[in-house]
Amino acid sequence: MTTPDNAAEVSAEPTGVAAQDWATASVDPHYRAAVVDLLGALAYGELAAFERLAEDAKLAPTLADKAELAKMASAEFHHFEQIRDRLTGIGVGPTEAMEPFVAAYDSFHKQTAPSDWLEGLVKAYVGDSIASDFYREVAARLDVDTRALVLAVLDDTGHASFAVEKVRAAIDADPRVGGRLALWARRLMGEALSQSQRVVAERDALSTMLVGGVADGFDLAEVGRMFSRITEAHTKRMAALGLAA
Amino acid sequence: MTTPDNAAEVSAEPTGVAAQDWATASVDPHYRAAVVDLLGALAYGELAAFERLAEDAKLAPTLADKAELAKMASAEFHHFEQIRDRLTGIGVGPTEAMEPFVAAYDSFHKQTAPSDWLEGLVKAYVGDSIASDFYREVAARLDVDTRALVLAVLDDTGHASFAVEKVRAAIDADPRVGGRLALWARRLMGEALSQSQRVVAERDALSTMLVGGVADGFDLAEVGRMFSRITEAHTKRMAALGLAA
Repeated sequence: MTTPDNAAEVSAEPTGVAAQDWATASVDPHYRAAVVDLLGALAYGELAAFERLAEDAKLAPTLADKAELAKMASAEFHHFEQIRDRLTGIGVGPTEAMEPFVAAYDSFHKQTAPSDWLEGLVKAYVGDSIASDFYREVAARLDVDTRALVLAVLDDTGHASFAVEKVRAAIDADPRVGGRLALWARRLMGEALSQSQRVVAERDALSTMLVGGVADGFDLAEVGRMFSRITEAHTKRMAALGLAA
Repeated sequence: MTTPDNAAEVSAEPTGVAAQDWATASVDPHYRAAVVDLLGALAYGELAAFERLAEDAKLAPTLADKAELAKMASAEFHHFEQIRDRLTGIGVGPTEAMEPFVAAYDSFHKQTAPSDWLEGLVKAYVGDSIASDFYREVAARLDVDTRALVLAVLDDTGHASFAVEKVRAAIDADPRVGGRLALWARRLMGEALSQSQRVVAERDALSTMLVGGVADGFDLAEVGRMFSRITEAHTKRMAALGLAA
């Protein structure tokens, strides 16, 4: 049936790069370089997330919790594999593509090593949610093939519901835990923003795409609005978790 | 075609428990308890191996090496899942089944934390090979269903060829490395034997199965021969790697 909703969808149909496939869109060397950067950043992010979750599994209070974290880590690794295979498929060395983003991710994880199980869970939840929000925003501006890949690897690995349930139970049992974790979540967001700025400052192709030089409909004001939306979504998630963000 | 070889195979055909399926064999409560122990030990071994490999991935000199270790870790996790699902399927809580073996594995890994990338590779290779030799020996004496599961999760996760190649190259580049790693491999074997003895001493059902009380064809002398075969295979592998064991 044709409804007003459908009409609205039609008017919002992708145009420009977002309506093209990779073969067409990647003819533009700037677009191609931006996507390679994006996939490199995403790939190393997944590999670093694998390591972080495997490390946090050690803090698990029970074997079942440990297995749950190991499962998430393994899911992140399979996401990494998909992106690595795409990079190889378009003739790019995965190591070369990831290299520029290693320092930012490693610094982030070094600055935010959780000191206990709950901090680890909040980090997995916050980190995943922010990354997912960011890549979903960017995905809308990508060519059809790259968009499909990015959305596929952002598929929920089960972090959210597991972390939310455990953190809520801990706050219920001892409300003071909430204050400590709220501070922790703020620190995570601050560190994530500071590392993102570093990446944007260093990677021309990627930032040019973000500020409208290449992909459609993205100008500096829009990037500002995107960061506002991501921060707002973070605040709402923290409130839902019982934490003042 | 019928050949003398075939004739030999026929004469070695499984009898007793080894010819039965799980439903039949598990009617004997001692056999059932022994298999639960075995699967619990195997499950926690895979989970611990996941953690160890994820940890060792941090020592990797390149991103490609890191990804290779992460892949092995992920494969171990999927093996863990298969065994955990089997335990659940036969009405046993995975945590309860694994619990008795946590201390032995954790002590082993704590006593043998690799100090660099090469020690980590040698450990992955030696540990996996010994565990694989042991479980294959035991598998031959298990019921058809349990045997199939055990053999499936022992499937090569790629440790061997990857580790062998990297360690050989390192010894070629600097022969002194061989002396240090040979000492390391001896320490690993010693620690593995000492933890195995601890498990055998503490777990009645498992050791009774090993010494012939339950499964077929396994008496104390045979267990001795099994340990000899495993040690011998280890010595040969170390020699092939360029290490005097």
